[in-house]
Amino acid sequence: MRAARMHDYKQPLQIDEVPVPEPGPGDVLVKVRATGMCRSDFQLLDGYFPIDLTFPYIPGHEIAGQVARLGADVPTSTGLAEGDMVVVHPAWGDGTCRQCHEGNEQLCTGSGGWIGFGPPGGFAEYVVAPGRHLIRIDPGTGLRPEYLAPLVDAGLTPYRGMKKLRATGRLGPGRTVVVSGIGGLGSYGVQYARLLGDGATVVAFSRSDDKLAVARQNGADHTVNTRGKVPDQVRAELAELTGRGEIDGALDCSGAPQSLELNAALLAAEGSLVSVGLMGRRVEFPVFPFVSGERTFSGSFWGNHNDLTEVLALAGQGRVKHTVTPIELDDINDRLDALVRGDVIGRQVVVFG
Amino acid sequence: MRAARMHDYKQPLQIDEVPVPEPGPGDVLVKVRATGMCRSDFQLLDGYFPIDLTFPYIPGHEIAGQVARLGADVPTSTGLAEGDMVVVHPAWGDGTCRQCHEGNEQLCTGSGGWIGFGPPGGFAEYVVAPGRHLIRIDPGTGLRPEYLAPLVDAGLTPYRGMKKLRATGRLGPGRTVVVSGIGGLGSYGVQYARLLGDGATVVAFSRSDDKLAVARQNGADHTVNTRGKVPDQVRAELAELTGRGEIDGALDCSGAPQSLELNAALLAAEGSLVSVGLMGRRVEFPVFPFVSGERTFSGSFWGNHNDLTEVLALAGQGRVKHTVTPIELDDINDRLDALVRGDVIGRQVVVFG
Amino acid sequence: MRAARMHDYKQPLQIDEVPVPEPGPGDVLVKVRATGMCRSDFQLLDGYFPIDLTFPYIPGHEIAGQVARLGADVPTSTGLAEGDMVVVHPAWGDGTCRQCHEGNEQLCTGSGGWIGFGPPGGFAEYVVAPGRHLIRIDPGTGLRPEYLAPLVDAGLTPYRGMKKLRATGRLGPGRTVVVSGIGGLGSYGVQYARLLGDGATVVAFSRSDDKLAVARQNGADHTVNTRGKVPDQVRAELAELTGRGEIDGALDCSGAPQSLELNAALLAAEGSLVSVGLMGRRVEFPVFPFVSGERTFSGSFWGNHNDLTEVLALAGQGRVKHTVTPIELDDINDRLDALVRGDVIGRQVVVFG
Amino acid sequence: MRAARMHDYKQPLQIDEVPVPEPGPGDVLVKVRATGMCRSDFQLLDGYFPIDLTFPYIPGHEIAGQVARLGADVPTSTGLAEGDMVVVHPAWGDGTCRQCHEGNEQLCTGSGGWIGFGPPGGFAEYVVAPGRHLIRIDPGTGLRPEYLAPLVDAGLTPYRGMKKLRATGRLGPGRTVVVSGIGGLGSYGVQYARLLGDGATVVAFSRSDDKLAVARQNGADHTVNTRGKVPDQVRAELAELTGRGEIDGALDCSGAPQSLELNAALLAAEGSLVSVGLMGRRVEFPVFPFVSGERTFSGSFWGNHNDLTEVLALAGQGRVKHTVTPIELDDINDRLDALVRGDVIGRQVVVFG
Repeated sequence: MRAARMHDYKQPLQIDEVPVPEPGPGDVLVKVRATGMCRSDFQLLDGYFPIDLTFPYIPGHEIAGQVARLGADVPTSTGLAEGDMVVVHPAWGDGTCRQCHEGNEQLCTGSGGWIGFGPPGGFAEYVVAPGRHLIRIDPGTGLRPEYLAPLVDAGLTPYRGMKKLRATGRLGPGRTVVVSGIGGLGSYGVQYARLLGDGATVVAFSRSDDKLAVARQNGADHTVNTRGKVPDQVRAELAELTGRGEIDGALDCSGAPQSLELNAALLAAEGSLVSVGLMGRRVEFPVFPFVSGERTFSGSFWGNHNDLTEVLALAGQGRVKHTVTPIELDDINDRLDALVRGDVIGRQVVVFG
Repeated sequence: MRAARMHDYKQPLQIDEVPVPEPGPGDVLVKVRATGMCRSDFQLLDGYFPIDLTFPYIPGHEIAGQVARLGADVPTSTGLAEGDMVVVHPAWGDGTCRQCHEGNEQLCTGSGGWIGFGPPGGFAEYVVAPGRHLIRIDPGTGLRPEYLAPLVDAGLTPYRGMKKLRATGRLGPGRTVVVSGIGGLGSYGVQYARLLGDGATVVAFSRSDDKLAVARQNGADHTVNTRGKVPDQVRAELAELTGRGEIDGALDCSGAPQSLELNAALLAAEGSLVSVGLMGRRVEFPVFPFVSGERTFSGSFWGNHNDLTEVLALAGQGRVKHTVTPIELDDINDRLDALVRGDVIGRQVVVFG
Repeated sequence: MRAARMHDYKQPLQIDEVPVPEPGPGDVLVKVRATGMCRSDFQLLDGYFPIDLTFPYIPGHEIAGQVARLGADVPTSTGLAEGDMVVVHPAWGDGTCRQCHEGNEQLCTGSGGWIGFGPPGGFAEYVVAPGRHLIRIDPGTGLRPEYLAPLVDAGLTPYRGMKKLRATGRLGPGRTVVVSGIGGLGSYGVQYARLLGDGATVVAFSRSDDKLAVARQNGADHTVNTRGKVPDQVRAELAELTGRGEIDGALDCSGAPQSLELNAALLAAEGSLVSVGLMGRRVEFPVFPFVSGERTFSGSFWGNHNDLTEVLALAGQGRVKHTVTPIELDDINDRLDALVRGDVIGRQVVVFG
Repeated sequence: MRAARMHDYKQPLQIDEVPVPEPGPGDVLVKVRATGMCRSDFQLLDGYFPIDLTFPYIPGHEIAGQVARLGADVPTSTGLAEGDMVVVHPAWGDGTCRQCHEGNEQLCTGSGGWIGFGPPGGFAEYVVAPGRHLIRIDPGTGLRPEYLAPLVDAGLTPYRGMKKLRATGRLGPGRTVVVSGIGGLGSYGVQYARLLGDGATVVAFSRSDDKLAVARQNGADHTVNTRGKVPDQVRAELAELTGRGEIDGALDCSGAPQSLELNAALLAAEGSLVSVGLMGRRVEFPVFPFVSGERTFSGSFWGNHNDLTEVLALAGQGRVKHTVTPIELDDINDRLDALVRGDVIGRQVVVFG
């Protein structure tokens, strides 16, 4: 089969011909139909993550495909059969730590792993995954693989983040929620702000007018282009747009320190900032307003199995808008460059024939 | 009456003879019996807070006393009568903002104020407060004024903070909770860690062995003197003491950036850091572990009426240990100096004859 | 002024000419523009509530009107001026109990009261209310009094109930939420199920096809006419409509025991039933499924000040549909009869000239 | 090996000689050291549960023992080795339903099962269980098998229940929490009320003075013998003991309708009743106080893996008191009879040589 492989950090991927992998007894061989391209793929190549890889390595973690072959011990309770369309839940915990026992395998502190960041990933024609980590897609939904694949991370990560933000109890009618960073994740994030925001006014922050246009199509009530602006300028724009110069919650999808610090500066009393973005190294906050106004900063990471099931349910009901550009495996390095430059609207997805 | 008054920022307090204040129709004149001395009194003098004062000004916000005279319109539902022992709930919201309508008057974003930081405070023989902000103390509890007064802030603030920490769901048996900074607040904080920590192992952090001795008396299972230590050294000590080199929750009572950053560095996955301390200006956190481990940093501010009622209930049942040094009004400047130097164990309380 | 008054239990209201009431210093005289008619008005007449009234008594608790005169001590922080359109928050706690200190004045266990169930109500040309219980309506919203009045109870009560249901964490995509009883409250309830249901499928239960038609207009995905059906029949209909024969949450707006018991019988594991209806005396549940499936039954009562503010924010943004029939004060007894017979779709509102 | 087996419903158990079972590849053969006897064992015999058994069947679900042999595929992440002392987490979900993906395998709505209620149980010298459902006990704790075994249900079930009760936010200083039914579960329940009750006053209800004596030893502040008393009598006793005639939370360990109804009658506004008991068929509540006071009734079932880990952590720290009577396998029918008669204080545990 053909696969895009890392041979070292900071080197282009190579398209190699490699053997189709062999599933173990609890595993499933999946014929990959589509694999999304994430900024974290670039970060993996760039050495951002504290992960040890064995080269050559196949990245790619947003995978939709079809069941090609079932291992002998895949439980019948999975309900899987050959030919089924599936997505691969990417976080495979070791099942023994506290987080795994909560169902949060993506937070496993034992020997768990994430497909595409350890186990070989989906920039290849076939991939192997444990049967219990596949989620079957009802053909009645009509969801195409290139729309399914990004739901595994770009569509999942801000969903969990928005659930965490909502759980603070600070959204609701008359409140304002910001989604900052309208890239792959944020273009879904604004949709969840509308769907799960409990009636709050939704504002998108980005440094690109093209991305803000996507945000408006996806449900943002208002948008602010924050490029080059200090907090007081953004506050003034907010006041004009919403009648208030502050916000009650923010879901940051960029991970950039200046974006986190801008959001923090705008938080109202009892406001909450949730970050799902991974980009910068360090962020700095002022102590007095966090304490005296009981503000909160927290992280949210990827999503668990039930989170993904919920995202797929929304998509299956036609309630999620996809902003997807199909690409070819052979163009993978060029497309990664475009992504890093910020030239991509929505998600690029490698589609396999 | 005699009162300690500020005549300017960064100047010693002066003991002045001033008229006894006159209560309005909804107010109560309280004969002050004891007023606690807080690091925030020094910070007020020092100009740390963004508050406009009119000089001369009487600070002091931890007030216990007796009802001397009731204004004509004090509601009978308050149940107050002349001679009753009371404490003054210090946060007087304007009653119209969202926070006030939640009962969190200490977070009022309208025109509310805090006694001792706006309305004249308790370093004086008499003080005036709205009847609805007095809490009557049952004489059956036998609680003396010098023990009651500190409960209004030193005893209240870490109580609310510990409730917030517990509400994250990350405490419990087999978990570790840290209280850092064992001054006025922290010596209560370790008690709440035991009372409300849901069975978690309680560890106190301080840079003073004398303060750690108080922490052990007040219920800490273990203590670590963190003076001059980097996170990895503290992690190693923790591992030896508790079997784990990480913590699930931390209540920081110091407000010092290095204390916050130490606690953050030790947080386990899903761990939570709550700060009630107000000292430093800015704090810096690493982005990746907050996001990938879903860690949380948040502030907790003072306490609301029900919080204070709960603290008084605990104290009334004899379940709170007091570490109090009675002092004289005439010594107030010297004692503030000692407090700022870090030479005070527990709380100093001005006792009135 | 003209007022509809009770002269005894179980007797028709009488339209009497009475003096305009005089506001106290903290009160406001409101010229009533519209007052909604609630099934609880009938229940008050019928003696259902354990409340002592002094006759003659003016009921009516869903009140919108204009500020006619401000008492001398109404705080300026209320922002009220003569001529302002306002609604009256109906629950006036005594301000001293735990519930009041949480902002839940509608649950006051002290000496508080509810306008229209103690203090004279709104079936009259003028009414007096404390300034702090009036909520000013921005004229820019263009909301008419007959649409505002029902928001105070019919629009508020299911809002709080849906917030409580959502707080159980059992709603979300792929889940099913039921609103049962599509009368005055339920016609708003289905809207909140859509707005706050976190993506759950919304099903309305009623015994009237006309009311189910309103439910569909107001956002229900599916409807079931439950008249004369046993739980297994409803389960089968649900399975056909939603693909599942069970539900994750139910907001019962009827209060009828058979409705509560039907909902309970359909609850999935971890499901939650919240009742806002007050009709029957007793309800019976099976123990085993509640325990083994961790099901929950709970009540939700009216709404607090912030809840009402949120409902008004939604309405002000045009996100609430009103199903209102204007009626005349002189027809009040006939219209109450129609309401009790179940012949009313949506809310009847007495409109004053 | 010797085993106590059911040959039919409503028949005495028979002590039979049967082959030692053979572990599958993911399983562990456990040499049973102690198995607790639960009222639910009697109920299983009696046909109370809607479960299909194949006879002859070995019941017993509170199992502590030692690893005798490891199946070939037991993951090394379990850390198990031959000779290790273990307890068996009894709820084995199918791993595919929503509840399993939350970690709540005891609530599995798929094809999961509970050892002792489907898979053969622990009233036998050996038992087989999946490796991932064993929890290793650190020998340093010195916990003996007869104390470990009851923790699996009697010690676990009220722990989860108390966590749910505490999560309502209605416990705390100045509040009252009741534990009703001081049998196997309730004698642990009062301990958790103290450990997790956030400072609430703990009251035990039972119809036996001997059981109330255990409750006092285990941390109850007050006790009420409720035998033959109507709610108003109990209310009067409460008022004398605690100063209030109502309660904020109740953990019912009996499951008896009259106990549930008594607790419900005593609940304060916003109070919560959690039932972990399984005995009666139906329970009846009054609608008006549940709605108007926002009271809650809910069930809590057994406990998940993390719950059990927490209970074991508490016990390992010596913070749990055991009230255990060792018994012989040969006496099992007599001892079941005694249990059903209510003649047993604490837990009876079958100890194997």
